[in-house]
Amino acid sequence: MSTLPIEPLTREAFAPFGDVIEASDAVRHFPINGGNTERYHDLARLDPGGDGRIIASIFRGQPRSLPFSITMLERHPRGSQAFIPLNGRDYLVVVATAPAAGALRCFLARSVQGVNYAAGTWHHPLLALDAVSDFLVLDRSGPGANCDEVVLGDACLIEPHILAAARLR
Amino acid sequence: MSTLPIEPLTREAFAPFGDVIEASDAVRHFPINGGNTERYHDLARLDPGGDGRIIASIFRGQPRSLPFSITMLERHPRGSQAFIPLNGRDYLVVVATAPAAGALRCFLARSVQGVNYAAGTWHHPLLALDAVSDFLVLDRSGPGANCDEVVLGDACLIEPHILAAARLR
Repeated sequence: MSTLPIEPLTREAFAPFGDVIEASDAVRHFPINGGNTERYHDLARLDPGGDGRIIASIFRGQPRSLPFSITMLERHPRGSQAFIPLNGRDYLVVVATAPAAGALRCFLARSVQGVNYAAGTWHHPLLALDAVSDFLVLDRSGPGANCDEVVLGDACLIEPHILAAARLR
Repeated sequence: MSTLPIEPLTREAFAPFGDVIEASDAVRHFPINGGNTERYHDLARLDPGGDGRIIASIFRGQPRSLPFSITMLERHPRGSQAFIPLNGRDYLVVVATAPAAGALRCFLARSVQGVNYAAGTWHHPLLALDAVSDFLVLDRSGPGANCDEVVLGDACLIEPHILAAARLR
C-alpha cells in the first residue's frame, strides 16, 4: 500500500478539480455597506446542472483516525459540491482525475478554506480532523441519480507523520 | 430615540423573514458516508429569482460599536440572501416587515446559526460583533437592480446592556 503525499491547498493546484473558497487578495473584492464590510465576490462556480437547484445543508463529520486508508472515491456527475468549514478546523481533501490509486491527490485544507468540486470530480467523502466538525455544503437537488462510487484496486494510506509535517509548513 | 429589544433567534420567531440555518434535531437529517457524517438537509429556501443564479461570496465585516443606531434598512427584491458565520462569533440581525422604526425586530444570532433573508425582506446590513468576522454569503447574481434602501424617519438604538443581557440568556 502506498503513502499519499499531502500538499498545501492553493487555487492553482486545485484548479483541475474545482475552486478554493477563501477571502484573499487574489480574488475580486470591494467595500460595501458604507465601508464596514469587504465583499470577496463570487468565489465558486456553483453548478446545479440544467434541471437542478443549489441547496444548503450542514454536514457534521466525525474526525478520521490516522493512519487512514483511501479505498474508494465518489463523484456527482450532475452538479458541483462545495464544503465550507464552520468550526475553524483544518481538514483533508482527496481528489483524482481518474478513479485509480495512482491518480490520487491529497490536500491539507486550512480552517479558512472551502472547496468546491466541479461536477464529475472524483473525490473521497468528508475527511474531518481532530474533532467532530460541521461544514456548510452547497450541492445540487434535482432529478436523476447523482452519485457514482468506485472501489479502488489499490488502497492509499494517509499517514499521521505526513500530516503533522504538512501542518507545520 | 427608542431602544430595540434583542430576541433569541429561533426558527419560529424568524419565519416571517426567512430561514435560520443550523444543524438541529428540528430539521430533516440522516447519516451518510457509511455513518461517518450526519447530513442536515436543505436548510434554506435559496431563491435566485427566475433569471438569476445563486453565488457564494465572503463578507468580512468590521465589528459594530455599541450603542449602535439603526437609521436605515435595505432589501433585495429579486432574490434571497443568506449569511453563515465562519468565525464562531455571535452577531446581530435586524429585520422588519415594513421600513419603519416601529416594525424593527432585532435577533441575537449565535455563532452556529446562519440566516437567510427571503426575497424582499427589509434588513439592516451586516452587524458583526466583538472582532472582524467573516460570513459566507449566498445571494443572487443576475440582471436588474436588486437593492432598495430606505432611511428611517426615527432611529432605533441597540444598547450594550441589552445585548449583554441577551447573551446571558
